[in-house]
Amino acid sequence: MKHARIIFEGRERTATVKDDQLLLSCGRTISLDEAEAWLPPLKPKKMIGLALNYADHAEELGLDKPAEPVLFIKPNSSLVGHKAPVYYPDGATYMHYENELAVVIGREGRNIKAKDAMEFVSGYTIANDVTVRDFVNNMYRPPVRAKGHDTFGPLGPYFVDAADIPDPNNLELRTYVNGELRQQGNTKNLIYTISELIEFISSFMTLEVNDIIWTGTPKGISHIHPGDTVRLEIDYIGSLENKILDGRTTGTAAGGMKHEQQL
Amino acid sequence: MKHARIIFEGRERTATVKDDQLLLSCGRTISLDEAEAWLPPLKPKKMIGLALNYADHAEELGLDKPAEPVLFIKPNSSLVGHKAPVYYPDGATYMHYENELAVVIGREGRNIKAKDAMEFVSGYTIANDVTVRDFVNNMYRPPVRAKGHDTFGPLGPYFVDAADIPDPNNLELRTYVNGELRQQGNTKNLIYTISELIEFISSFMTLEVNDIIWTGTPKGISHIHPGDTVRLEIDYIGSLENKILDGRTTGTAAGGMKHEQQL
Repeated sequence: MKHARIIFEGRERTATVKDDQLLLSCGRTISLDEAEAWLPPLKPKKMIGLALNYADHAEELGLDKPAEPVLFIKPNSSLVGHKAPVYYPDGATYMHYENELAVVIGREGRNIKAKDAMEFVSGYTIANDVTVRDFVNNMYRPPVRAKGHDTFGPLGPYFVDAADIPDPNNLELRTYVNGELRQQGNTKNLIYTISELIEFISSFMTLEVNDIIWTGTPKGISHIHPGDTVRLEIDYIGSLENKILDGRTTGTAAGGMKHEQQL
Repeated sequence: MKHARIIFEGRERTATVKDDQLLLSCGRTISLDEAEAWLPPLKPKKMIGLALNYADHAEELGLDKPAEPVLFIKPNSSLVGHKAPVYYPDGATYMHYENELAVVIGREGRNIKAKDAMEFVSGYTIANDVTVRDFVNNMYRPPVRAKGHDTFGPLGPYFVDAADIPDPNNLELRTYVNGELRQQGNTKNLIYTISELIEFISSFMTLEVNDIIWTGTPKGISHIHPGDTVRLEIDYIGSLENKILDGRTTGTAAGGMKHEQQL
C-alpha cells in the first residue's frame, strides 16, 4: 500500500492511494489534485545519507570506490514534500539533484546482521539528496552546508510498504529535468546493499522506527537552475516532483564561500 | 534557573534545582541522589557540532585554524544523561572526551544576524562530544562513526536559563578524569563566537526550538579507557559525570576499520 501525508482543507491528513485517488483516514476519497500540499510521508528521527554508493557515480566525481560505506547525516530540517519548492541559494553555481531509494526502518535495532536486515525495513520512498557541489570545497568538512539547506531534502510522495516492492535490489531510478531524461540507474548497482548498510550503521548506532537511509545516487548528475522542474521516478514507488526557485538574496551567484585547501 | 529531566519512581519527571535539591513538577522535593536516572535535559530536533573551534585545540590536532566554521551533525541517538555509561567500542584505541558549552535555541529562526543572535538563545548545558579518533581515518568522511555511536553524547545535567549566565563568552571549562584535571579552557577563546555561529548556521538552516549547538572543545584532550570516570565542569552550569564501560564484543581493541588514504 502507498501512504501519504497531505494538507487538505487546511489540516494535516494521512491518506492511502486507491485507484489513483487519495483515501483519507476519515473515509473520504479525493483526487490527487485536491491535495493542497504534500508533506514528507514520514517524520524520521534521523536520516543517514550515503556518499559514493554507486561505482559509476563515484567515477563521475573522479573519486575512488570507497573501502567502506561513506556516511553523512541529512538534517530533518531539510525535508520538504512533493511539489514543494527547492531554493537555489546564494553562492551556488553547481546545484545537483540526486535520485535515491530511501529505505525506512520499521523496527528498532542495533547490531543487526545483514542476513536479518530486511526484517527491519518497513518500506521505501523516493529522496532527492539536493547538493550544491560548490559547498563541498574542503574534503575535511562534512557536507552540512552542501546538503543540509532548508528544502534540500524532498521526500515522497509516497511511503510504500516493503511487501509491495518485489525486489528492492532491482529498482530502476530515472530523473527528468524539464521533462528530459538526465539520470538513469538501478539499485542492483549499489556498492553496499541495503542489508549491508543496515548491518554497518547499526553496528554503532541504534536504528529507530522511521529512521531513513538515503542509499546514494547513481551516475547522471547534472546542473539545475532556478525555474527547472526536477522529477524523480523509482519503480513501484512513484514520481517526486519539485521546482527550483531562486532563493538568492544578492541577485548574483557570487558571495559564497571561498575555496580552501586545508587538507 | 536550572532545569533537569530525571527518572523518579520509575517515571520521567521535569525538575528544577532549589537549594541543591530537586523540586519536581508535582511540588515534591527530593535530594539529587534520589534521582533514579538523569536524562538529557532537553529533546533537541537537531544538534550541530563544531570541529576546530578553539585555536589551541586545532593546534594540538596538527590542523590549521579553519577559515570558516567546520560543522557536523551529532545524531540525537547518541545522547545520554548525567551518570549514564559511555561505551568504549570495538576497534577503538584513542577515545577522547571533549568538554563543550552547548547552546540551546529558544526561538525558531533563519537568517539571524549576529547582532540579534543572543535573543534566540534560551540557555546552556554541558556536552561531552565523545570521539574515537581512530575512526576519523579518512578526512573525506563526516565523523558519523567517530562521534555518532550510541552513548557518545552525554548532555546535562542541567539546562540553565540564559538569564542566569552573566557572560557566555567568558566561561571556564574543566575536565577531570578519575579526579585528575586534564583539560581547561575558556569560551573567550572560541574562534567563532556563539553569535557568529548562529548567524552562519541559520544562513542556510532553520534553527528550531531546542536545537543545540555544540560549540567545540579547547585544548587538553587525552585518551580515556574502560573504567575511567570523566567529569566535565562549566562555570554556572554544573558538573556532568559519566563512566566509561567496556562495550567491546571481541575482547580486543583490534578489528576496527582499516585506515584509508583516499584523499
